[in-house]
Amino acid sequence: MTKWVYAFGDGKSEGESGMKNLLGGKGANLAEMSNLGLPVPPGFSITTEVCTYYYKNGHQYPAELKDQAAAALKKVGEMAGGVLGDPAKPLLLSVRSGARVSMPGMMDTVLNLGLNAKTAEGLAKTTGDARFAYDSYRRFIQMYSDVVLEMDHAHFEEILESRKADKGVENDTDLDANDLKEIAEAYKKEVQKALGRPFPEDVEEQLWGAIGAVFGSWQSHRANTYRKLNNIPEEWGTAVTVQAMVFGNRGDTSATGVAFTRDPATGEKLLYGEFLINAQGEDVVAGIRTPQPISKMVRERQGGKKLSMEEAMPKAYAELMEIGQRLEKHYRDMQDVEFTIQEGKLFMLQTRSGKRTAEAALKAAVDMVGEGLIDKKVAILRVDASALDQLLHPTLDPQAPMEEIAAGLGASPGAATGEAVFTAEEAEKRAAEKKDVILVRTETSPEDIHGMHAARGILTARGGMTSHAAVVARGMGRPCVSGAGSLKIDVAKGELVTNGVTIKRGDIITIDGAKGKVYKGAVKMRRPELTGDFSTLMAWADETRKLKIRTNADTPADSATARKFGAEGIGLCRTEHMFFDADRIIAVRQMILAETEEGRKAALAKLLPMQRSDFEAIFKEMAGLPVTIRLLDPPLHEFLPHKESEIAEVAKASGTDVEKLRARTAALHESNPMLGHRGCRLGITYPEIYEMQARAILEAAANVEAGGGKPVELEIMIPLVGYTTEFDLLAGRIQGVADAIKTEKGKVPAYMIGTMIELPRACLRAAEIAAGAEFFSFGTNDLTQTTLGVSRDDAGTFLGEYLEKGLIARDPFVSIDVDGVGEMIRIGVERGRSARPKLKVGICGEHGGDPASIQFCHDSGLDYVSCSPFRVPIARLAAAQAALKSDTKKP
Amino acid sequence: MTKWVYAFGDGKSEGESGMKNLLGGKGANLAEMSNLGLPVPPGFSITTEVCTYYYKNGHQYPAELKDQAAAALKKVGEMAGGVLGDPAKPLLLSVRSGARVSMPGMMDTVLNLGLNAKTAEGLAKTTGDARFAYDSYRRFIQMYSDVVLEMDHAHFEEILESRKADKGVENDTDLDANDLKEIAEAYKKEVQKALGRPFPEDVEEQLWGAIGAVFGSWQSHRANTYRKLNNIPEEWGTAVTVQAMVFGNRGDTSATGVAFTRDPATGEKLLYGEFLINAQGEDVVAGIRTPQPISKMVRERQGGKKLSMEEAMPKAYAELMEIGQRLEKHYRDMQDVEFTIQEGKLFMLQTRSGKRTAEAALKAAVDMVGEGLIDKKVAILRVDASALDQLLHPTLDPQAPMEEIAAGLGASPGAATGEAVFTAEEAEKRAAEKKDVILVRTETSPEDIHGMHAARGILTARGGMTSHAAVVARGMGRPCVSGAGSLKIDVAKGELVTNGVTIKRGDIITIDGAKGKVYKGAVKMRRPELTGDFSTLMAWADETRKLKIRTNADTPADSATARKFGAEGIGLCRTEHMFFDADRIIAVRQMILAETEEGRKAALAKLLPMQRSDFEAIFKEMAGLPVTIRLLDPPLHEFLPHKESEIAEVAKASGTDVEKLRARTAALHESNPMLGHRGCRLGITYPEIYEMQARAILEAAANVEAGGGKPVELEIMIPLVGYTTEFDLLAGRIQGVADAIKTEKGKVPAYMIGTMIELPRACLRAAEIAAGAEFFSFGTNDLTQTTLGVSRDDAGTFLGEYLEKGLIARDPFVSIDVDGVGEMIRIGVERGRSARPKLKVGICGEHGGDPASIQFCHDSGLDYVSCSPFRVPIARLAAAQAALKSDTKKP
Repeated sequence: MTKWVYAFGDGKSEGESGMKNLLGGKGANLAEMSNLGLPVPPGFSITTEVCTYYYKNGHQYPAELKDQAAAALKKVGEMAGGVLGDPAKPLLLSVRSGARVSMPGMMDTVLNLGLNAKTAEGLAKTTGDARFAYDSYRRFIQMYSDVVLEMDHAHFEEILESRKADKGVENDTDLDANDLKEIAEAYKKEVQKALGRPFPEDVEEQLWGAIGAVFGSWQSHRANTYRKLNNIPEEWGTAVTVQAMVFGNRGDTSATGVAFTRDPATGEKLLYGEFLINAQGEDVVAGIRTPQPISKMVRERQGGKKLSMEEAMPKAYAELMEIGQRLEKHYRDMQDVEFTIQEGKLFMLQTRSGKRTAEAALKAAVDMVGEGLIDKKVAILRVDASALDQLLHPTLDPQAPMEEIAAGLGASPGAATGEAVFTAEEAEKRAAEKKDVILVRTETSPEDIHGMHAARGILTARGGMTSHAAVVARGMGRPCVSGAGSLKIDVAKGELVTNGVTIKRGDIITIDGAKGKVYKGAVKMRRPELTGDFSTLMAWADETRKLKIRTNADTPADSATARKFGAEGIGLCRTEHMFFDADRIIAVRQMILAETEEGRKAALAKLLPMQRSDFEAIFKEMAGLPVTIRLLDPPLHEFLPHKESEIAEVAKASGTDVEKLRARTAALHESNPMLGHRGCRLGITYPEIYEMQARAILEAAANVEAGGGKPVELEIMIPLVGYTTEFDLLAGRIQGVADAIKTEKGKVPAYMIGTMIELPRACLRAAEIAAGAEFFSFGTNDLTQTTLGVSRDDAGTFLGEYLEKGLIARDPFVSIDVDGVGEMIRIGVERGRSARPKLKVGICGEHGGDPASIQFCHDSGLDYVSCSPFRVPIARLAAAQAALKSDTKKP
Repeated sequence: MTKWVYAFGDGKSEGESGMKNLLGGKGANLAEMSNLGLPVPPGFSITTEVCTYYYKNGHQYPAELKDQAAAALKKVGEMAGGVLGDPAKPLLLSVRSGARVSMPGMMDTVLNLGLNAKTAEGLAKTTGDARFAYDSYRRFIQMYSDVVLEMDHAHFEEILESRKADKGVENDTDLDANDLKEIAEAYKKEVQKALGRPFPEDVEEQLWGAIGAVFGSWQSHRANTYRKLNNIPEEWGTAVTVQAMVFGNRGDTSATGVAFTRDPATGEKLLYGEFLINAQGEDVVAGIRTPQPISKMVRERQGGKKLSMEEAMPKAYAELMEIGQRLEKHYRDMQDVEFTIQEGKLFMLQTRSGKRTAEAALKAAVDMVGEGLIDKKVAILRVDASALDQLLHPTLDPQAPMEEIAAGLGASPGAATGEAVFTAEEAEKRAAEKKDVILVRTETSPEDIHGMHAARGILTARGGMTSHAAVVARGMGRPCVSGAGSLKIDVAKGELVTNGVTIKRGDIITIDGAKGKVYKGAVKMRRPELTGDFSTLMAWADETRKLKIRTNADTPADSATARKFGAEGIGLCRTEHMFFDADRIIAVRQMILAETEEGRKAALAKLLPMQRSDFEAIFKEMAGLPVTIRLLDPPLHEFLPHKESEIAEVAKASGTDVEKLRARTAALHESNPMLGHRGCRLGITYPEIYEMQARAILEAAANVEAGGGKPVELEIMIPLVGYTTEFDLLAGRIQGVADAIKTEKGKVPAYMIGTMIELPRACLRAAEIAAGAEFFSFGTNDLTQTTLGVSRDDAGTFLGEYLEKGLIARDPFVSIDVDGVGEMIRIGVERGRSARPKLKVGICGEHGGDPASIQFCHDSGLDYVSCSPFRVPIARLAAAQAALKSDTKKP
């Protein structure tokens, strides 16, 4: 006979913590605590298999369930000293759902089940506390009607409020037993009125109603959506835990509370939490009364006056402290517990792993290794890699006063304060005068890059998480708030208006790029502390991971930052960002406007020394490490002005006339620039551009070596290759440049030529391409755009809705679409290595800093991932976690 | 010992026509003719294996070659009665290249080889014709210097011209033997001067120089490029054929000429060709004298006065006639022969399959089946499917007078005459008044579609072969000239200026969409004749092919045309084209401008009856056949005006204000609309649009059935699916509409729901998608754009250069990129059928009418291809050819 029901209580259990799949997290941990001899009110769990049975059999329960539940309930009554429905010794129950993982949309809790007119009276008599009895009764009716009968909450609020008004009192506590009894009666009438049937007086009916509601909620719309988004199989089902009630609301020797075994904000080892005297759990949540800290130390730090639990109930505190330590040792993790003290006696109602900030996770993990609780591998897995982001940027001091003036998306984490400026030129100018500036734009374009670099932070009125501003800012590690819709920016006037506040050019503002907030004036900051714990954990991660971590960096400054964060090379150095600097853009434009190859070559000759010195500086920073340099990629029109106001100015600066400039801009216009004349296609039509770049790279490397610098591993990358013929032609030209340099100087630095794989066709033809290419770098941004047929710049209009409707689980520009883009990558890796077994393979899209994508890269056998400098530590940790998780998966 | 040399002559040969790979086409056919006992001057071929050896061994010949060649040369001399280099009985030779297939870039011919100062004198003596001897000599020096020594032609022209000027004569024929001898001497001095070494007097050196030049030309730049583009392996190599000279320039009983065994323009069975008395082959080509027709009938038809060969040389004519018929029977194909008559005796110098027009190919193939020369399968393979296009459209009468005023690209074949109009509205208005119009635009956009429909032809100043105008025009079967850069169009004034000519609104112009020409006034046309031969061949093709042929048609008129051409259903009915009609666009815009779902629904309710009646008309035309209807695909901004001038007008018509309209247009703007909010993404965000369309389709089908019409096989197609979840959600909504109709009316027509596969991700996830989708239609236009990362609208800027540089063999938007897009399709088909073995699969991109792509579709097991109405016959024939070719490939 299948066992559908597992009892616990009095120091023993039929279940244990390993049985989460069957008993749910809550039930399994209650069973475990009972096994440990901890004070747990007796109860039983109905298994998840019942849930599965229920849905497979047209909402019927297994035949044996009722008998098994009755037997378990009998035991519970014996242990708790009561009988369900017996007015002489009423047993009250809590009924709670318990899936394997905590899940929004599920029915949560019904308390005080088992009360009706008779048992309420009985409870009043046996406890000698009529007010307690009727307060519990009316709470039960309200809660049960809400979560089981699905009645609108408001009905009951009205009754309660009008009663208080009638009596002329303000607080619930001012109502006496009689009031509460009458309120309970009124509640029941309301149920009859709303549902056309009475509130169940039968306690069995109450119990099975609550159990049915738990199972029913497994298929609620919200639960279904959540499961789809989080890949939780429907077959898992939920368990139901039924437990004898204990009461924290039996006077001043009673209390209820929650506690963490370490401070969830900092990781400090102390009992951290809150409690309320004479209260039930829901009161803590409701926020009508303010809970007190549990430990004296915390109370003192906060400057609180009311007694802490340590002071008010020292015995219960000591017991809780000891239990907390036992649980931590037992579970080898920080615990989050719920407890109730009934007339001086402590009961444990729940334990689970405690949620924590990145800082706390880091400290606790490192501390626990020191305490011998866990080993390094477990420590590595304990810290959420994405959350490390919080530690790597300055943040606003939450205690500081601040005046919010706008809100948008937290597009790139960190906080920044500076003068508001409205053009890239202004940003550059003021930054050159050593001023901190925040660049404020309606939206940014590649022409703003130099201004973004000069600014401390970026604020835009338009654009989503994957807008140009957001992507570039994350790449640069600049805080960014994007899409702050309330901003009205008047560039000509040099001011912005938002929510009635006017900010003029030069006025100080502060942005919080994590939360997406904008504040007037300066706000006090906290600098990130990359403490000893941080480097300890990073060192463990580095020992563990298989993937190398490189960075996307276009400047010496980015390179230096990334090395500090532990980057092992540059995976993507975008040469075009160098083209936007004020002194170069003129030559770039002359090159674009030239009508002959000779004209282009003359302009390129001016650029050559500038690019060469850029590369020299970067190579010095990255001495001894690999550096992948991508040749020019964006379409040429990105370098030309588009606004009428700029055209005249640019025409003058580049020595051409306005008409010609306008004509050239129009000729370069494209319907779909993402799929246009860019990447290696430029190299094919204007070979002299790539030749200049190849020369700048090779000469720079030669100069650094000649100056005694340690050489970098030079990787020259041809972007957007789709046809093998493209690669072969361009690689040949680069080799031609190298040969020429060798002839001129007698030698040429060692270099590799490879390609960026960004097109489905390149993945399919990878074997042919790898015959010539010495490395592949998957450009997952563009590969996502082409494989999915989705423009990153335009996706904002519909991807949000896709996420909302559960059509996709995650934004494919944030986390690799493993089933689509991922398969393309795997095809590319497999075919590429079939032709060249030692092919070096990495990724350099935005995904390189996303832990789930890093797991994919590890599993797919890539050699490295490359991400923005500020995400390097995240990638190091995520790569270590990926290695550990894959090891576990292997047989 | 390897045999490197194969001799022929005197009615026997060491080779035969099956040895083309070894002897080249020319050599093998000369051997074959010799075997047949035809009068062929003796000679020998050096095999292609020598060429391969030559390149594998550092430009060395095999050791045995010289002896084998010498032996063969000796035999040639014996047969021809001469000895190379012997002034007493000089033997002259021709040296020609001969690859398996005729190939541009290869050295062609050296004639009269073996002449030097001594043999020239000997030739003068032995023939008694000094002028002939020295004319031959100076020709030889000129030709040899040009093709073997690679000297500039101009050197010799100058010498010749100045000699004529000195003598005060105009024609070469006015020069006497002495003049020619002196010219030969002057030529030789020129060579010495230009090259620093003398012109070779040694005849052996001449011979091996010419042979070496042939082998050398195999690796010339032009030959390499041609091979790459046409997938001809380098290893094939070329042969060299050395043959005794015969002379058509020995007086009035000598002649030279070329002939076809049937008229290559019409296919009529008669000896068709030209000849010149007293001339060498090069004179025919040079065009200094006008050749005469060979047959009397042709002379009379052309009204020529000089005698035909039939009249002037009846004996040689009769012999040529008889040989032509023998060759046709022998080769079972129309032949193109070269011949020379030396002093009354006929010699055959070459035979090969004759090139022919589509009309001739068709007639000859059908006639030859009637004559028992070939069977139907061979007949099907004999006609170039693409060339059929010539037969399906009206063409300009080449004899008619015409005044060309502009030239552009032949973007959509056919000719059209009509009044020039400059806006779509005007086109529609004048067409409604029963006038023929040519719509002239700088470039077209989707808003012009109704005008393009109304026009007889389309002319644009900008855009390439794959511009909007070109693609839509081909789809509609409208002649189109695109990118006629000389046009200056002034819409406001209602005129265009081109090359100094002004065309005002209403002036008549004529366009030739095949040649890309524009003419002033009306030009006389020839209507296409779909003769008995045409339908005979089509019937044979239909018996043979496995692929079904459908059409892309959006209107009842297109549907009717396509059925006439043999379409077996509609593979793509684009519903959006219906949205552009004047009476609908207002409602469409109201729908787009609506701010609420209700507003959209109200506008859609207006569109419903219009779409329904569109579908009814189409379903009636396609009774009994499958019809695939694509739900709305293009981004909504395509339906809004973009020019300031239109915005006010549209705002008024759609009852909204200008500001709002401008804001909505701006909000809908996309960076890369191809990858934007379109296709099923619209269906996800605005489900009511697809619901309206599903209702219109199903109600239309129900109405047609209710009216007694034969039902179509209804296929509702969801475009641009990338995720299974998209398909499932939308298919569910369409089923919902069907269920609603069933409830309302008691029944609903049978229908299938499928999807257009246009994204690499969809190909990869095809198994999942096919679990729900009942059919796949590969949208190869978009699949090409995404797989290759190339925007069709922007590719013009670089694809041309890719073709030129040999990076790609064919435009991937014209012929499927088999290695990239093709593999994506194969993956999609295989995975789709793994989930649903009977999945119906077709393609509906522009490629559906391209024979090479049709071959691919056949080989990949597709069920059908869908193409524009005018390409249906091409597709029928190409599908039959594909089936025959695949059968041959199978073991």
